[in-house]
Amino acid sequence: MTDFTKRLTDELGRDLVALGQDIPERAHRDWSGMDPVEPLALVRPRNAAEIGAALALCDAHGIGVVPQGGLTGLAGGAQPSADAIAISLERMTAIEPVDAEMACITVEAGAPLAAVQQAAEDAGLFLGLDLGARGTCTIGGTLSTNAGGNRVIRYGMAREHVLGLEAVLADGTVVSSMNRMLKNNAGYDLKQLFIGSEGTLGVISRAVLRLQSRPTFSTSALCGCRNFDDALALLKAVRAGLGPSLTSFEVMWPSFYDFMGKSLGLPRPLAEDHGVYVLVESSGYEEVRDREQLEATLGACLEDGTLADAVIAGSERETADLWAVRESVAEYSRLMGKLTAFDVGLPAHVTGRTVEVLEAELRKRWPDVIALSYGHIGDSNLHLVVNVPSAGDEQPHGEITHFVYDTVRAAGGTISAEHGIGLLKRPYLPYSRTPEELALMRRLKRALDPNNILNPHKVFEMDEESGSQPTM
Amino acid sequence: MTDFTKRLTDELGRDLVALGQDIPERAHRDWSGMDPVEPLALVRPRNAAEIGAALALCDAHGIGVVPQGGLTGLAGGAQPSADAIAISLERMTAIEPVDAEMACITVEAGAPLAAVQQAAEDAGLFLGLDLGARGTCTIGGTLSTNAGGNRVIRYGMAREHVLGLEAVLADGTVVSSMNRMLKNNAGYDLKQLFIGSEGTLGVISRAVLRLQSRPTFSTSALCGCRNFDDALALLKAVRAGLGPSLTSFEVMWPSFYDFMGKSLGLPRPLAEDHGVYVLVESSGYEEVRDREQLEATLGACLEDGTLADAVIAGSERETADLWAVRESVAEYSRLMGKLTAFDVGLPAHVTGRTVEVLEAELRKRWPDVIALSYGHIGDSNLHLVVNVPSAGDEQPHGEITHFVYDTVRAAGGTISAEHGIGLLKRPYLPYSRTPEELALMRRLKRALDPNNILNPHKVFEMDEESGSQPTM
Repeated sequence: MTDFTKRLTDELGRDLVALGQDIPERAHRDWSGMDPVEPLALVRPRNAAEIGAALALCDAHGIGVVPQGGLTGLAGGAQPSADAIAISLERMTAIEPVDAEMACITVEAGAPLAAVQQAAEDAGLFLGLDLGARGTCTIGGTLSTNAGGNRVIRYGMAREHVLGLEAVLADGTVVSSMNRMLKNNAGYDLKQLFIGSEGTLGVISRAVLRLQSRPTFSTSALCGCRNFDDALALLKAVRAGLGPSLTSFEVMWPSFYDFMGKSLGLPRPLAEDHGVYVLVESSGYEEVRDREQLEATLGACLEDGTLADAVIAGSERETADLWAVRESVAEYSRLMGKLTAFDVGLPAHVTGRTVEVLEAELRKRWPDVIALSYGHIGDSNLHLVVNVPSAGDEQPHGEITHFVYDTVRAAGGTISAEHGIGLLKRPYLPYSRTPEELALMRRLKRALDPNNILNPHKVFEMDEESGSQPTM
Repeated sequence: MTDFTKRLTDELGRDLVALGQDIPERAHRDWSGMDPVEPLALVRPRNAAEIGAALALCDAHGIGVVPQGGLTGLAGGAQPSADAIAISLERMTAIEPVDAEMACITVEAGAPLAAVQQAAEDAGLFLGLDLGARGTCTIGGTLSTNAGGNRVIRYGMAREHVLGLEAVLADGTVVSSMNRMLKNNAGYDLKQLFIGSEGTLGVISRAVLRLQSRPTFSTSALCGCRNFDDALALLKAVRAGLGPSLTSFEVMWPSFYDFMGKSLGLPRPLAEDHGVYVLVESSGYEEVRDREQLEATLGACLEDGTLADAVIAGSERETADLWAVRESVAEYSRLMGKLTAFDVGLPAHVTGRTVEVLEAELRKRWPDVIALSYGHIGDSNLHLVVNVPSAGDEQPHGEITHFVYDTVRAAGGTISAEHGIGLLKRPYLPYSRTPEELALMRRLKRALDPNNILNPHKVFEMDEESGSQPTM
């Protein structure tokens, strides 16, 4: 036990602080795929004041603090460090009863997303925020990373669901802004500082989330287009025709659609092959009307040639068949082994051409490459997954990453659409942000965390030199 | 000419700087009703670099800068000061062609809101942001104050319409984050600093605004409820029944409805008197279906007794009749002379009781008082307008204000729902924000504007003592 961990244990009590072998292994890593690391200590506070006590002590001693939620982040934002403590929000999972009149719910940061969704539904309302990791990810982590997910085209990113927030500053001060009103312009909107800053400006302890009226029916269609430009024309048409009923617009290139479909023997509801495949989902309040609206909109697109083919699901079973390939992404690792995966954003008009270039150039460099492209194109978000079978466990991660981010930078895109920067993308942050923006981020960080204890080395290094050059 | 204004004119050129009588009178005041003041100089830059040049010079000399847009703010945020220059964005009104694929539009900060709305409509899209001052207010002012307005229940506050932003810092640095993508999590979301901070952290120079698919039909209903609790039950019912088609939920108490209706001889579409009146507006994409949905939802409320009566407009003329009283607010001053007006937020469940208390207590203190209550109750936003006829031009503003804000504070509300703090509400900011929040606001201000040149004295004073005590 170091002097610091002894002091920490003495001040917070043995119940709150785990050391060495008492730290559960799951706290040694997040889902970024980095090597496990035992943190200096694991603190499990029961409330914001206890988070504050831990932070104040760390701040006084210059010890780093890594906040941990569900540990489902893919960029390394919750990855622990041997010289920093980890703070787990796992004991702060309270969910208050839904406020039906204000259409909001108040939760502690450690509450899992799925539990909050369920509480909203039990009260006849609906949380517009949804991610694949819903059963494990927590509200605190979801907000810290400003997560996106499945319904962004309709309900926006995590940020847009937050009415109020409580966060603990580096010096231990609890700043509570638990607003429940849609409109509140009394001074600066401080919650924005903590949303999406990946735990580097404060530790989120509680939140008030906005709830929506719950759509009662969803209808899905799988569409085939000749090329990406036609898919963009389809996007315009369904935006205009479905308005706020449009809840998904997922594009799958043949690289993804054919490889996953064939490898897993999944249903192929469209008879012919197409240049790109698009899943369109409409969600509304009246089944027959909503279906008619979707049919009319897609019918017009078939007639004017925007669509080559389309099939609308007529049952839950058919819906599952249409989504089967899109939802097969959990099978990647089993099919391909080690991967290099991307979550980039691209302006719509260059997305088609950029995917062509990326796939062709990767194939030129690694002839046996498997490069799968798909994404939330309604949100400008492209996912690309790359594996070079001949490289086995020694995947050329660095070279692939460098090439992809170079291409995204040249296309005016962003290196992170929804997963954040964490540790893994830190070297590439200057690809997407200007020197003036990076300087302002560091200025904010210095103002809020002068001793650089909050999730140090994440997002950017405070020392400009050490954080700015990607190494391969 | 002072040394400073000479230097300013020499560096920026006579074309950019107006002094003394060359400053147009309209720059002497905003719509807050404060007395006109001639600023030290009026600078009219043509681009962000010129804003930067002016700010850098002011920063070096410790001279304050008051940014001015359309000057329609009601809280004094753009009110000039004799010892500070004003910067008008009036020459920066460019509107770029709509990006239809990304559904966004790029504009300079001085562009009037109505012109941006028109550009969106010309491209077949729709800006969800709308205020009464649309013809005069600018995008820069609208974003600086995070304005709300008429469609918040459906499209959110100004903040939620911003994809990208460019702002000029106190030292003249131009920070450009002109993102057009719905998802972009590459580092801190810096634009949030400048939205809603009323020009105290930077001067907004350009923005990328998100556009929506344009609803093609709107249908309005005027509803009569026995009391406010029934109006809240109606709100729940129309949220569930109309979903995202619900675009207005405007409550009018009899104090407002009867006074304005009778004074102006306006149509009274409901036969009987009611405890509260509610305007419900539904906007969608298919006229017959949308109307049926509204009829069914209100029909169920009539049947279960939530509604006492309701009339749905069948023509544009009827729609105008239903909205006539709500839209008569421009006639206040003509009817009543000097006013004390409020824009407060209240939690839904206490709103009815709070309005009762406010109106009754005002009447107790000033028996002839005219106190009119109405608001965007779907957004928790109450407007209250007070006039004491017997006081003539010597309205007891201070006493009324103190009493109303005391009551709002006790009810857990906010002293500013959508108009901001500016100068007028500054003494009351501590009624709605905690000492920890105020300390964090000051910390941010110090970090971004160490010489306190940006809109000084607005929102809060940097010196804690001078800004915290309301005087009557």
